[in-house]
Amino acid sequence: MAEPVFARLALIGVGLIGSSIARRARATGDLAGEIVACAKTPATRERIRELGLADRIAADPKAAVEGADGVILCAPVGTYAEIAAAIAPHLAPGAIVSDVGSTKQSVIRDIAPHLPPKVHFVPAHPLAGTEHSGPDAGFATLFEGRWTILTPPEGSDPAAVARVGEFWRRCGAMVETMEAGHHDRVLAIVSHLPHLIAFTICGTADDLADESRSQVLKFAASGFRDFTRIAASDPVMWRDVFINNREALLEMLARFMEDAQAMARAVRWADGAYIEDKVKRGRKIRQSLIDLNQA
Amino acid sequence: MAEPVFARLALIGVGLIGSSIARRARATGDLAGEIVACAKTPATRERIRELGLADRIAADPKAAVEGADGVILCAPVGTYAEIAAAIAPHLAPGAIVSDVGSTKQSVIRDIAPHLPPKVHFVPAHPLAGTEHSGPDAGFATLFEGRWTILTPPEGSDPAAVARVGEFWRRCGAMVETMEAGHHDRVLAIVSHLPHLIAFTICGTADDLADESRSQVLKFAASGFRDFTRIAASDPVMWRDVFINNREALLEMLARFMEDAQAMARAVRWADGAYIEDKVKRGRKIRQSLIDLNQA
Repeated sequence: MAEPVFARLALIGVGLIGSSIARRARATGDLAGEIVACAKTPATRERIRELGLADRIAADPKAAVEGADGVILCAPVGTYAEIAAAIAPHLAPGAIVSDVGSTKQSVIRDIAPHLPPKVHFVPAHPLAGTEHSGPDAGFATLFEGRWTILTPPEGSDPAAVARVGEFWRRCGAMVETMEAGHHDRVLAIVSHLPHLIAFTICGTADDLADESRSQVLKFAASGFRDFTRIAASDPVMWRDVFINNREALLEMLARFMEDAQAMARAVRWADGAYIEDKVKRGRKIRQSLIDLNQA
Repeated sequence: MAEPVFARLALIGVGLIGSSIARRARATGDLAGEIVACAKTPATRERIRELGLADRIAADPKAAVEGADGVILCAPVGTYAEIAAAIAPHLAPGAIVSDVGSTKQSVIRDIAPHLPPKVHFVPAHPLAGTEHSGPDAGFATLFEGRWTILTPPEGSDPAAVARVGEFWRRCGAMVETMEAGHHDRVLAIVSHLPHLIAFTICGTADDLADESRSQVLKFAASGFRDFTRIAASDPVMWRDVFINNREALLEMLARFMEDAQAMARAVRWADGAYIEDKVKRGRKIRQSLIDLNQA
């Protein structure tokens, strides 16, 4: 078997993503020689213990990172600045700090300034997840066949970037590197905006008068059901994602709102050709996705 | 075996829904003694023949309805007025005319005035479908466990309504009756608006500059993928649905846009409590759906 990527891996936060990494590491043995799991709440720590997800369990991130050559932040991105400030003095020289956050400019802004010069920082974002959360939601195959995007800041150590890339490839992921700002714009349209829209339309339905609302639930046709699946995600994680990818998200939302207004106008004036054209574009994009084996 | 609901059933239009009815009728024998299928294009008629979906195949709706005691319009709702005008003089006395359209006020507006007094009209809407269309897309179990909503106009013959209800129950559907205007409002929020949004966001993504667009396809996370699935529907059908449920759809879209603007404002001003609350509502609705066994 290959040497583990990290001799001691500290996972700060053990929800859907963190527990999936731990399960994968337990299952394959080639990711980490030893796993230290850090969780804030006693209930989560107890659950990690019951599930056997780690060799050591810590309440304090400072203690968790001691002697670790790999540290991955798996908490909501809104907590990263505080965690980075807390762990920085305790990081081993040469350690690699990474994360799994959905917004990369904010992660670099919040983490990089705290880190000592001899520590490497390689931000990462596995594009994988489900609508479930918590340590029970994870599974070892979550990342298989999915992309993980690395956004190393300019001047990053190529060996550290390669090591994080190898870590994710061993998780079963396909790895791509891009600039953090570009990542944030692409994710705003493929993930953050769709989630914002799904949360919003669920609220719009929930605001309907009582009789209609109960019938919304009763007759939820496939369209609305798919939206509620997207919408059933972790509130704190998404709150942090929206706020930390504000600029790109608001730009994409503004574009979408303009397009929705144009569609409303076409409906009002019965502009059949316009509507048909838009539906055809949806089909075309769907077909492109299928062609790319992403569907 | 039970007596078939109709001795001779004419299906006007044989796409996803029409061909699913035909397949079900072929499989069970208790829906129709004889099936007459009417399709506009020679290619579709040829395909119906190859698939063995009907006892007789007609190019002209007038010929298709002769001697039928059941007639179901399964074409896009924008064609109903013309079809109703054409078939009206050829309908057998006592025949039941029904349909499967997604907009019920427009269907009543477009069909009822044409029908002779001795013909019964029972509008129906099976809440079932996939993103595929055409005679090859149908399957006999499409309606199983799904709702079919009947919207009989005031003064409808109760026996005719009961017969159409029985037809759909034998298709495996759960049957509910409601007023057409109420149907249109409920469907606007559970189905028509989600589709309009999905078509729109696919267009928004397609309008991005080339590099981003190709990456949108490459990194389509689950959020966007679900939207493209919804968006991969029949352009003519949806064009007609939007235009024929204009008032309810525009009202729901206006409500949604207000809510999306409020969300945009919360993102801009980092109002975490507001965002979290909206995500929690999405979760709550999701849970209600699961509790109702609809998810």
